[in-house]
Amino acid sequence: MAQVGDFARLDVGRRRRTGVPEVVYADGKTPQQTLQLLAELRRRTPDSPALATRCPEEVLREAADAFADEPVRVDTRARTVTVGPLPAPRGTVAVLTAGTSDLPVAREAVATLDALGTGSRLFADVGVAGLSRLLSVLAEVRAADCAIVVAGMDGALPSVVTGLLAAPVVGVPASVGYGFADGGRAAAGAMLASCAPGLTVVNIDNGFGAAVHAAKIVGVRDGE
Amino acid sequence: MAQVGDFARLDVGRRRRTGVPEVVYADGKTPQQTLQLLAELRRRTPDSPALATRCPEEVLREAADAFADEPVRVDTRARTVTVGPLPAPRGTVAVLTAGTSDLPVAREAVATLDALGTGSRLFADVGVAGLSRLLSVLAEVRAADCAIVVAGMDGALPSVVTGLLAAPVVGVPASVGYGFADGGRAAAGAMLASCAPGLTVVNIDNGFGAAVHAAKIVGVRDGE
Amino acid sequence: MAQVGDFARLDVGRRRRTGVPEVVYADGKTPQQTLQLLAELRRRTPDSPALATRCPEEVLREAADAFADEPVRVDTRARTVTVGPLPAPRGTVAVLTAGTSDLPVAREAVATLDALGTGSRLFADVGVAGLSRLLSVLAEVRAADCAIVVAGMDGALPSVVTGLLAAPVVGVPASVGYGFADGGRAAAGAMLASCAPGLTVVNIDNGFGAAVHAAKIVGVRDGE
Amino acid sequence: MAQVGDFARLDVGRRRRTGVPEVVYADGKTPQQTLQLLAELRRRTPDSPALATRCPEEVLREAADAFADEPVRVDTRARTVTVGPLPAPRGTVAVLTAGTSDLPVAREAVATLDALGTGSRLFADVGVAGLSRLLSVLAEVRAADCAIVVAGMDGALPSVVTGLLAAPVVGVPASVGYGFADGGRAAAGAMLASCAPGLTVVNIDNGFGAAVHAAKIVGVRDGE
Amino acid sequence: MAQVGDFARLDVGRRRRTGVPEVVYADGKTPQQTLQLLAELRRRTPDSPALATRCPEEVLREAADAFADEPVRVDTRARTVTVGPLPAPRGTVAVLTAGTSDLPVAREAVATLDALGTGSRLFADVGVAGLSRLLSVLAEVRAADCAIVVAGMDGALPSVVTGLLAAPVVGVPASVGYGFADGGRAAAGAMLASCAPGLTVVNIDNGFGAAVHAAKIVGVRDGE
Amino acid sequence: MAQVGDFARLDVGRRRRTGVPEVVYADGKTPQQTLQLLAELRRRTPDSPALATRCPEEVLREAADAFADEPVRVDTRARTVTVGPLPAPRGTVAVLTAGTSDLPVAREAVATLDALGTGSRLFADVGVAGLSRLLSVLAEVRAADCAIVVAGMDGALPSVVTGLLAAPVVGVPASVGYGFADGGRAAAGAMLASCAPGLTVVNIDNGFGAAVHAAKIVGVRDGE
Amino acid sequence: MAQVGDFARLDVGRRRRTGVPEVVYADGKTPQQTLQLLAELRRRTPDSPALATRCPEEVLREAADAFADEPVRVDTRARTVTVGPLPAPRGTVAVLTAGTSDLPVAREAVATLDALGTGSRLFADVGVAGLSRLLSVLAEVRAADCAIVVAGMDGALPSVVTGLLAAPVVGVPASVGYGFADGGRAAAGAMLASCAPGLTVVNIDNGFGAAVHAAKIVGVRDGE
Amino acid sequence: MAQVGDFARLDVGRRRRTGVPEVVYADGKTPQQTLQLLAELRRRTPDSPALATRCPEEVLREAADAFADEPVRVDTRARTVTVGPLPAPRGTVAVLTAGTSDLPVAREAVATLDALGTGSRLFADVGVAGLSRLLSVLAEVRAADCAIVVAGMDGALPSVVTGLLAAPVVGVPASVGYGFADGGRAAAGAMLASCAPGLTVVNIDNGFGAAVHAAKIVGVRDGE
Repeated sequence: MAQVGDFARLDVGRRRRTGVPEVVYADGKTPQQTLQLLAELRRRTPDSPALATRCPEEVLREAADAFADEPVRVDTRARTVTVGPLPAPRGTVAVLTAGTSDLPVAREAVATLDALGTGSRLFADVGVAGLSRLLSVLAEVRAADCAIVVAGMDGALPSVVTGLLAAPVVGVPASVGYGFADGGRAAAGAMLASCAPGLTVVNIDNGFGAAVHAAKIVGVRDGE
Repeated sequence: MAQVGDFARLDVGRRRRTGVPEVVYADGKTPQQTLQLLAELRRRTPDSPALATRCPEEVLREAADAFADEPVRVDTRARTVTVGPLPAPRGTVAVLTAGTSDLPVAREAVATLDALGTGSRLFADVGVAGLSRLLSVLAEVRAADCAIVVAGMDGALPSVVTGLLAAPVVGVPASVGYGFADGGRAAAGAMLASCAPGLTVVNIDNGFGAAVHAAKIVGVRDGE
Repeated sequence: MAQVGDFARLDVGRRRRTGVPEVVYADGKTPQQTLQLLAELRRRTPDSPALATRCPEEVLREAADAFADEPVRVDTRARTVTVGPLPAPRGTVAVLTAGTSDLPVAREAVATLDALGTGSRLFADVGVAGLSRLLSVLAEVRAADCAIVVAGMDGALPSVVTGLLAAPVVGVPASVGYGFADGGRAAAGAMLASCAPGLTVVNIDNGFGAAVHAAKIVGVRDGE
Repeated sequence: MAQVGDFARLDVGRRRRTGVPEVVYADGKTPQQTLQLLAELRRRTPDSPALATRCPEEVLREAADAFADEPVRVDTRARTVTVGPLPAPRGTVAVLTAGTSDLPVAREAVATLDALGTGSRLFADVGVAGLSRLLSVLAEVRAADCAIVVAGMDGALPSVVTGLLAAPVVGVPASVGYGFADGGRAAAGAMLASCAPGLTVVNIDNGFGAAVHAAKIVGVRDGE
Repeated sequence: MAQVGDFARLDVGRRRRTGVPEVVYADGKTPQQTLQLLAELRRRTPDSPALATRCPEEVLREAADAFADEPVRVDTRARTVTVGPLPAPRGTVAVLTAGTSDLPVAREAVATLDALGTGSRLFADVGVAGLSRLLSVLAEVRAADCAIVVAGMDGALPSVVTGLLAAPVVGVPASVGYGFADGGRAAAGAMLASCAPGLTVVNIDNGFGAAVHAAKIVGVRDGE
Repeated sequence: MAQVGDFARLDVGRRRRTGVPEVVYADGKTPQQTLQLLAELRRRTPDSPALATRCPEEVLREAADAFADEPVRVDTRARTVTVGPLPAPRGTVAVLTAGTSDLPVAREAVATLDALGTGSRLFADVGVAGLSRLLSVLAEVRAADCAIVVAGMDGALPSVVTGLLAAPVVGVPASVGYGFADGGRAAAGAMLASCAPGLTVVNIDNGFGAAVHAAKIVGVRDGE
Repeated sequence: MAQVGDFARLDVGRRRRTGVPEVVYADGKTPQQTLQLLAELRRRTPDSPALATRCPEEVLREAADAFADEPVRVDTRARTVTVGPLPAPRGTVAVLTAGTSDLPVAREAVATLDALGTGSRLFADVGVAGLSRLLSVLAEVRAADCAIVVAGMDGALPSVVTGLLAAPVVGVPASVGYGFADGGRAAAGAMLASCAPGLTVVNIDNGFGAAVHAAKIVGVRDGE
Repeated sequence: MAQVGDFARLDVGRRRRTGVPEVVYADGKTPQQTLQLLAELRRRTPDSPALATRCPEEVLREAADAFADEPVRVDTRARTVTVGPLPAPRGTVAVLTAGTSDLPVAREAVATLDALGTGSRLFADVGVAGLSRLLSVLAEVRAADCAIVVAGMDGALPSVVTGLLAAPVVGVPASVGYGFADGGRAAAGAMLASCAPGLTVVNIDNGFGAAVHAAKIVGVRDGE
């Protein structure tokens, strides 16, 4: 455990304990705090890149300058910053989205998988209103070790995918839609009440959490 | 308008005004009130059968004796009683269910369509966890003038069906499932927030209302 | 199916399959994505106009310039853009609103009906607090093939209208009112729990969905 | 204030202070407690009848025997017991119900008005699905000093009535209906969000509370 | 009924029918529409002032200029505009608030009472956390014909006041507080579930509706 | 920690760690499991009585026989069983209820305080609809070290009491009332959103939890 | 796909497609339907046992007789019936419960894992109110390939466990507790909003779904 | 009681009555009102500092100038202003936070304790995802008279802490997190439904209220 200023205690033993290093959740922190925590993570756990999620504009804008000596990846749609060289990817996680508006969530998952050293493939806009879109990519999806399925509105896609795959599936409700979509709650409710056995669910818009779970599954495959 | 006892005013002009005769909603009425209202409806609007929905056990058990001179149809799963000869059916409404547990709601729809003189075909247990079940009946479903799709749990089936049909589709959320299924609210939320354009929705378990809407659509077809 | 960039797969077979062409839901897309999708739709499905709903300011402002060679209709209240010549209208859908504030939702319905080649008439501000307003237009409403009724606050108007018409009625809850109006949820609850048989409901503010359903009903009339 | 056993303190000064005597709310009390409290009320405030609402079966069955020397009125639908002679009625409160199933709530209001010495007239089953039923009694309703309107399901009737009367109107949501009716919450939401100015609302099924408010209004008329 | 542009139908017979003239609800209307409707109301119902509630900044700022020949009252806290001479007040309505933050709602009530020709007295900041504040004004409150009690947070004050007055009481939940205050829903729930008989409730922040009800009560007193 | 069967691990160090011994929560356990756990607690922690809360009928009925050699206290209203001699009471906790129906919750608090060796005084039926009831006991309440205030319906009493006492106050929402009382949620919302500073709240009907907190406060007084 | 009566279509290809055979969800089916479906499953997919979950009393009682020639396992707490010989177990899933009352849900998970040929170990009553209970079994839990953590009330245990393990963790909210526990919704909310990265969640009480996900993870390990 | 302008009545006897002086809740007040009330408090209750919570920017910025002759403490994170010399601290309250984002709420608690003359120690970022952080400060926490535990997201920390301390614990749900965190409601639900006996809860983000309760507990210790 590493005290940072008077505002944080970095859990530097987390990777050893849980297989996944501490990650900076930037929401509710000042940009300075986030950048300081990224620097501290790089210094104390140099064997994995430092990742921050839900970064505000200022962090996205200043990250490259703040870490001029390191490779820095900034995804402004996913609102992620990754500092340090990426590990070589192992395994494959299929990341699907029902619509175009679900992409930022899917990209947060992809950025997280990248930082954790897990491979991924992204299949965008394959929602159930036009099933042929899903069927046309199904063989490729089936080749993955695990699938993450992002959907807003009715949240129907994860149920359909779970009924078609042997791999474990994690559904991510997206805050896409209006009225009864209710900020992703309708999608979440549909996924949690799904008729398809084995679908598990993470918080609304939580591409990060789904990716951590998927990376742990790939770790199981590799006997970790 | 016809006063019945001191507890009801039958809207005997409803069929002329709305195309659909008054129907007895038995829930919250005493069995005696329901049977008396059915008798009154038969007497005052003899050109259509009298229908009661959501009947308690006692009404289901006594209806045949109460109307010994008339054909009486009792569906104990749908909890409907129909008194009087059925009109010849016009048009076809496809009634689909996601699972076996949705059947009582679907049968309320069928009994209502029967009473209104609208044809129907029932396709049970074609939910999205095994898509092939739906695809195997799709051609037949497409031949209908309108579709009613009953689903509980994730409520995903109506979205999938709406993406596959030119006919108008009405979704009926069913109070099937537990936890986040929330008595049909998850299914309703998914249908109302659906990504499939043109899907409309009725109250949870309201097979009756969906059937009335479908019958009105068939009426439009026939230039009423 | 047509891949557009790496962010969308246009469902170009949707009209053949469902009677209604793919429509661009602009919310959550960048203005560039929306304009690109409109252009792609015009190119691939030239026999119907391309419609985008829920457009942000930038799309509304730039649409006319972006499609200088085509007729472009922009409705800034409805937030719709329609590119290409409108088809000749068939049938008539009555569109009613309870109050003045419900007009944007009603106009989204009208713009959608226009794009789908379905005729419409708009009756604004006929809510139940002053019933004479509704009664004065009732004969005209009764002449329509189908009615769409938009109401916020108590959502009472669709129930009253359904009790007066033989045509099928679709209620659209509007996010009008405060406190218990709850962003349209009170109106939606009232419509879904309605005492008037046959009323179906779409999502809050979903004038688009109601119009698609109504257009499909007119299609049924015409034997499609 | 009068201590009763170790479980209650009767507010015997309530009538002097608020114009309305203490009333026994029997729900959650044992039958013995309720009967004892009724007896105590008769003894300490002999100038008005003693009223208990929401009585369980046992109280309804035993009340007449328990007060053999007094006039006792038991309404098994309303679940009320009134002990002692009724005062002569003053004023008139119109009590309307949307449907037959709302009658128990309306009768609780009537029993309360009786006990408080306020006149009433009951108009059952005049809901908005068939407006002519309301219009046929409108002149009589207009003659009242105040109106109480009970409605479940969509809760639309109080809004319509408020738009037609000069008298103050109190809406009572009834726990009638299923699904989105939500135990009376849809009706309550519609009434609280009503477009009709001046409608006030009480708790679901609270015929008692509406009657007390109405009786106080009649008291205002009489300069109390 | 008077058509105004293509967006509104003024209910000019409302005062004759309900005792209360049509009032402009400015929320969701353009400033131009609101000003036009105020002008139309002045022209068609010159015997009462024209009132608009929930006015946006622009209407509040421009109202005086728009009606240069008439007395205009603008309350920027209550967000009301009243055009035309006020009628002489009849009766007295006590308007109480639990805290200082509830004042805008209370002033909407007062402005409405002024426009309707009903007298009022305002008692601010007498909430239950310091009961002596209420007790010190109780005698004056008791002199009123009716009381309106505005409270946010716990919504406890209307219950306490109802237990102390013979006059009818209307509670107005205010959207004051945070967290479980839930935009006024906690206060509304407390008022609707109140242990104090006869308290009725209006929508959250609906000072206008409470005032209309109170004015109708004063009208009952005067035999209207 | 003590393993009991294969279904429980008794936390026998809890009293040393938290000042409060392990208590059996009987809900969801079989009667046999509850009785076995009480016996195990008596055996392993003989210096304090063993308490079980939320006991089903069978446990309440059989407890005295099951522990024939020990003093056993059974409160059928509170649904508690206490086995073993009570410690001498220290300090005083005032336990107030708004109404008679709140008594079972208050008695669970009292039984818990008894078992923990904390003194208590019970003041029943002092709710805000008749404030004089509270004021008549106020001096006695003020003498306590801490107050527990149980209230259902509007949950107003804890706010009023907190505004009158220097001692810390814990509010207990009770599942008393109907409709918007919502099983105690309205009362809980009112308490959590209270305008009275320093009021803390426990779960609905959780007299046990309030008592443990109060006992810990008395422990603070005594320098534990 | 195999039609069974007119009420079901068995998805006999599900195991080939998803790795997990069709399972009978007995809730909402008649006992006869459930027993018939179990028999059909045994006949058509003889290589795996047939499992039914959420069985009513009658099925639990009659299953052994109905399949006299086969090994039948009935768990009356878990409400599961398994017909046919169990496959040899592969891998290990740790199943933890916070309290004794969570056991039925945990046992549904264990029965499902048994039927799917996945090994398991059960750790009961290790909730966070006494952390030492968890710490004492931690080494054993860490040896598993995957963990399922069942918790009602505050749902805190899965967050704590996820922070201590490298294996993927699935949380199962249990409908244990009262008031704000809200039938498992508080636990579900806590798990979905967890601060511990990688925790995924299934529906309330859905031990079955968690087990299917865990079995798929073990399948990934084995390169399926 | 002191009238301030026409908008407030200061409860100057509150400290004598409740041990805690009146505090200005600045939300919903104009900056001028807040500053005027602070001045009035200083004048009328000079023996304790005047505190304002939830101050808008303008008050935070101008407070020092407004009270140039007095010590003024402004905490821009906590949004508090304290005017006047702080009393000497008595006792110790441990204030813990689960994460860095919970700090503003914790600092409101600390500022309040400072103003009330109660000592405090702050332990930031000790949430359950890395238990060692909590364990490393446990001995210091155990030395306090009372603990305040602030947590958003899953709200698990207060349950864990309550299981480890003899001192009374107050949980403060923080509006930290997204989706199912629901503005602090998930954390609040977890705390209210906690398995740890004796935890009490205040409103979301209500550091002030928790501090008042804690200060009263310290007062009990000191025999006040």
